[in-house]
Amino acid sequence: MSYGELDNLCINTIRVLSADAVANANSGHPGAPMGMAPVSHVLFNRFMRFNPKNPDWINRDRFVLSNGHGCMLQYSLLHLFGYDLSLDDLKHFRQVGSKTPGHPEAADTPGIEVTTGPLGQGFANAVGLAIAQAHTAAIYNKPGYDLVDNYTYMFFGDGCLMEGIASEAASTAGHLQLGNLIGIYDDNHISIDGNTNCAFTEDVLKRFESYGWHCIHVTDGDNDLSAIDAAIAEAKTVKDKPTIIKLTTTIGYGSKLQGTHEVHGSPLKADDIKSIKEKFGFDPEKKFDVPSAVYEHYGETAAKGAAAEEEWNQLFAKYQKEYPEEGKDLARRLAGKLPEGWEKALPTYKSTDPAIASRKLSETILQKLYPIIPELVGGSADLTGSNLTRAKEAVDFQPPSTGLGDWSGRYIRYGVREHGMAAIMNGLAAYGTIIPYGGTFLNFVSYAAGALRLSALSHHRVIYVSTHDSIGLGEDGPTHQPIETLAHFRALPNCMVWRPADGNETSAAYYIALISKHTPSVIALSRQNLPQLENSTIERAIKGGYVAVESEGAQVTLISTGSEVGICIDAVKYLKEKHNVVARVVSLPCWEVFDAQPKEYKLSVLPDGIPILSVEVMTTLGWEKYSHEQFGLNRFGASGPYKDVYAKFEFTPEGISKRAIATIEFWKEVTPIRSPINRAFAQLI
Amino acid sequence: MSYGELDNLCINTIRVLSADAVANANSGHPGAPMGMAPVSHVLFNRFMRFNPKNPDWINRDRFVLSNGHGCMLQYSLLHLFGYDLSLDDLKHFRQVGSKTPGHPEAADTPGIEVTTGPLGQGFANAVGLAIAQAHTAAIYNKPGYDLVDNYTYMFFGDGCLMEGIASEAASTAGHLQLGNLIGIYDDNHISIDGNTNCAFTEDVLKRFESYGWHCIHVTDGDNDLSAIDAAIAEAKTVKDKPTIIKLTTTIGYGSKLQGTHEVHGSPLKADDIKSIKEKFGFDPEKKFDVPSAVYEHYGETAAKGAAAEEEWNQLFAKYQKEYPEEGKDLARRLAGKLPEGWEKALPTYKSTDPAIASRKLSETILQKLYPIIPELVGGSADLTGSNLTRAKEAVDFQPPSTGLGDWSGRYIRYGVREHGMAAIMNGLAAYGTIIPYGGTFLNFVSYAAGALRLSALSHHRVIYVSTHDSIGLGEDGPTHQPIETLAHFRALPNCMVWRPADGNETSAAYYIALISKHTPSVIALSRQNLPQLENSTIERAIKGGYVAVESEGAQVTLISTGSEVGICIDAVKYLKEKHNVVARVVSLPCWEVFDAQPKEYKLSVLPDGIPILSVEVMTTLGWEKYSHEQFGLNRFGASGPYKDVYAKFEFTPEGISKRAIATIEFWKEVTPIRSPINRAFAQLI
Ligand SMILES: [Ca+2]
Ligand SMILES: [Ca+2]
Repeated sequence: MSYGELDNLCINTIRVLSADAVANANSGHPGAPMGMAPVSHVLFNRFMRFNPKNPDWINRDRFVLSNGHGCMLQYSLLHLFGYDLSLDDLKHFRQVGSKTPGHPEAADTPGIEVTTGPLGQGFANAVGLAIAQAHTAAIYNKPGYDLVDNYTYMFFGDGCLMEGIASEAASTAGHLQLGNLIGIYDDNHISIDGNTNCAFTEDVLKRFESYGWHCIHVTDGDNDLSAIDAAIAEAKTVKDKPTIIKLTTTIGYGSKLQGTHEVHGSPLKADDIKSIKEKFGFDPEKKFDVPSAVYEHYGETAAKGAAAEEEWNQLFAKYQKEYPEEGKDLARRLAGKLPEGWEKALPTYKSTDPAIASRKLSETILQKLYPIIPELVGGSADLTGSNLTRAKEAVDFQPPSTGLGDWSGRYIRYGVREHGMAAIMNGLAAYGTIIPYGGTFLNFVSYAAGALRLSALSHHRVIYVSTHDSIGLGEDGPTHQPIETLAHFRALPNCMVWRPADGNETSAAYYIALISKHTPSVIALSRQNLPQLENSTIERAIKGGYVAVESEGAQVTLISTGSEVGICIDAVKYLKEKHNVVARVVSLPCWEVFDAQPKEYKLSVLPDGIPILSVEVMTTLGWEKYSHEQFGLNRFGASGPYKDVYAKFEFTPEGISKRAIATIEFWKEVTPIRSPINRAFAQLI
Repeated sequence: MSYGELDNLCINTIRVLSADAVANANSGHPGAPMGMAPVSHVLFNRFMRFNPKNPDWINRDRFVLSNGHGCMLQYSLLHLFGYDLSLDDLKHFRQVGSKTPGHPEAADTPGIEVTTGPLGQGFANAVGLAIAQAHTAAIYNKPGYDLVDNYTYMFFGDGCLMEGIASEAASTAGHLQLGNLIGIYDDNHISIDGNTNCAFTEDVLKRFESYGWHCIHVTDGDNDLSAIDAAIAEAKTVKDKPTIIKLTTTIGYGSKLQGTHEVHGSPLKADDIKSIKEKFGFDPEKKFDVPSAVYEHYGETAAKGAAAEEEWNQLFAKYQKEYPEEGKDLARRLAGKLPEGWEKALPTYKSTDPAIASRKLSETILQKLYPIIPELVGGSADLTGSNLTRAKEAVDFQPPSTGLGDWSGRYIRYGVREHGMAAIMNGLAAYGTIIPYGGTFLNFVSYAAGALRLSALSHHRVIYVSTHDSIGLGEDGPTHQPIETLAHFRALPNCMVWRPADGNETSAAYYIALISKHTPSVIALSRQNLPQLENSTIERAIKGGYVAVESEGAQVTLISTGSEVGICIDAVKYLKEKHNVVARVVSLPCWEVFDAQPKEYKLSVLPDGIPILSVEVMTTLGWEKYSHEQFGLNRFGASGPYKDVYAKFEFTPEGISKRAIATIEFWKEVTPIRSPINRAFAQLI
């Protein structure tokens, strides 16, 4: 393809628009937008397929800016192509309440696919988006109906490549032979500490070759539009490998300080911007000045995208007639609906049923849902046999050439890559046709904290199957026994943390996790067997908390989760028999969900008048919210058979009873004893 | 070197001893010990220098088992060489209270250098140990005095290599040309999910070549002792690159199930163990049976190590005479003492001093301590200019050939590799001559959560300089604004979380962080300026909490940290002027340290009789521990100038006052109002 003056005008418009917005905000990163304007122009106009009027069109090409600090680039592009992002929005870059926050947020801005900025995340999200495309295509495409054939493009910088999460995702993408994934590496030799030679001297393309990627180097990313074009075109021809295009650019191209880290993260000076505008033939006195030719040109690209969607809509209408079952299923997924009546498959239990580990209960649920919710795509970070995350009949998602599965497979072997797995799941969820879940030990969800945070911030329905949830895992010891982990995720906004106590509660956890379209869930599951509780039902448990043992004239409420609820129930008997003390028990499998119940209900569960003792074999931090006294483990655990470990730390009916009595005694003198549900004021939301 | 029957006997002894211990515990991982027995035997007897009678000898070679689940290998070796680990200890493998927990813990077992098990950590720790050696050698070695010339050896498996943290550390080690680091990769094609071909098909050696490592492949790691020997010998000759030896082995070598994932993580069956013993010429009926020839042979190696230390002690004695200053300094470091009077360098501030961002206050401290505490080795994950972690006169720790620094440099450019940085710091701290600190944004310490957890569990004095600590960072927005982060680390045992409010508190944070030899510290620092408080002193702040504003007849206590303390003090005035309400203010820069104060003191800070309102611009989770009502931010923040963001969420004198009044009203009806310092029972520690 040939490129001319108009192209340069467009590219320079992106540059000055981005520089203007950063200067106007007096905050932001002008360097990357100015350096990557050429490749953006080529990619978006000559290769990408998208309709700015419908950012949700399923077969659009996906674009991820993994170096999210360069988001003024993306905002400029979205504006120029006619997304719902006005020049005024650009003028409010980095202001409270704007659609143009300091880093791109999927929930805030039309056209932003995933939230980026925390480095490396976008890279792994893109791998997830590419997996989702390959999988969705394998499920739905038919001869003559390439319903789903979009590409995923991503930009990333040196910072992303240094992050381990990108290594994990890159190795995964290479193994999976994701030919639909094209990454453009902004090789500008600059990171915040200065020249990358101070910390990052690896041979990037060789590294990506070792992962199984196709590698291309474009040496003049500042000017050689034809070479950029040729590289992307070449990448598209490689069907069995992801491609990385190393694009050597000059950060802050056009600035007096171009090529230095000074243009990375600070606004350019006024005289520098003026000189840039002069250099590029713009009026140095005008700000946010977009030549009409640029709007026109980008409008043409947008119109082509709109036409492509229209064509696709017709194709899909035809498809729905020829393949009514698949058509209905895809339409349902795109509407964000679960299959009618799916919840009937959730198992229920009676208290006479045998004790079962909640990881095993989870396995039963996943097995039962496997044939009913086809959009469930699972996996594990190399702990399949421990997390119990794989349905018996599942096929692995693998390149067919491996002989280990195929593209329609619904089980992903993530390898020992927790952070990568979580961020890939964010990408899977963002695609729009998949509900991802993935397993690891609860303790190692912490490795994925950066990505789980973005599940929450970006409103992704991602399910973290988190087994071996406490000292109850026993012999593996303190290195594997979570103490702080649940407190961490309970403190994370828009994240549901479940710690079910039995079968019905586990079903409740999955029920809420699956119907909550905009919230991730961490489901903490035991390694050891747990008894089925007498009063537990799915209906009760989906309120997040309920009365597990009611007792007339109770002197104390024991509130607990997961494996300790059963021990608390035993403690009720022990207290009665040994001390003639009457206690009641509340199971609180999910704080976030309980918090959302009406106050009246919450007070019926945690009534005024008697003190409350919390019991959980991990940090007490946060339990003060629901209790007057707390029994927990504010230290690391111990390696040994789990019953010995529980006994060591006194998580026994006797140990709980001792503390329950101390609680009753201690609170005798206070009147009234108010339930902690009563608060002086409401929190801002 | 030649190898014979005795060597095979030793190797098979390790195998059967490990299999016996795992079977006896009925829990554990026999596969790796059996597969890696040959290389261990060669490495420990023919190459490594260590004295089992003094595991702390500074010039010992370091050994790290990054695939820590294989720890029975290490326990067997430690026992056979005569470390303080008896056969009885091996019989108590994975039992409560034993010295042989399920994964190796540095604080529990003599001869264990670093805590491993969480995959990839040990790999990065080893990089830290190697950096420490190179740095310490550069500081102390003199002509004729190779005081510090040890190697760091590490074993790691497929799991470690899949983890991003290992990629980060490997890239760093290659950049740093760490010729003293030799890694042995247990290439056994097996991970928990089965054959590595399902998820891990990258070309590992090519990847390491791309990082700048020297690469060797030993194809028969089960039997070819000479090839193993030659590979390690070759690695030692390569002085300007770390070496990876890919050692192809058979997991569970000798078992009927060898080469399958079934021998990875479960005890071998009794009949399998019998057959192994028969195959290797052991009495199948005997357990924990060590031939005396093996003890003798390993005893000889141990004796050589003891002699080497003795020789070293003489060398060091001579060195101390010839280089008294350096000798004294090294002796001081080895004794774990800080330079006398160092604390006098900590800056103090008067309330009339200007407002300064606490990240800047931290910079001043690091600058002042730079010449006084030479063992302080700092760095940043590519945020030097933002974290302000570099002393002006600092030299970078870099290979001299880069022209960017030298081996004696005390500033490490970690690159954008937070997890790797943290785990490398654990290795630096474990070495014994360095106190490491490293900077990143507080929000991205979460990327390093896996390693920070091990700082705490392993008792490493590591300082996490964590700037941009709240919504106060402003424009970068919710992707960068911590909400859950401090709660997470406050819930982590043996971790000090500091959030200083001004200059004196920042000095106090560093004071306690530096004198706490067995505890890591997270120091949360503001981007924005903070006023110097009237009542703050280092002496008060080192108690973790103190009264910042006392008021006769106070009706409410405001308790706060960091940037909100100053706003609370303004709220006191506002409350008095606008509402005639009397309030007092407590600053609580470090919960962990405050918790350790005598109860009487704590009650003087948080007295009975009036309600307490906590104020912190992040999750309220955990604040119930110190307060009756909580004002916080249980949602994500917002992108904008920080004053606008604070105003949006009502963290203003007015917003605080409103809630203080609500708190007073709400608690009027309760008697007595007890300080939350009063508890019904003490927590287990
Ligand atoms: Ca860069
Ligand atoms: Ca392996």
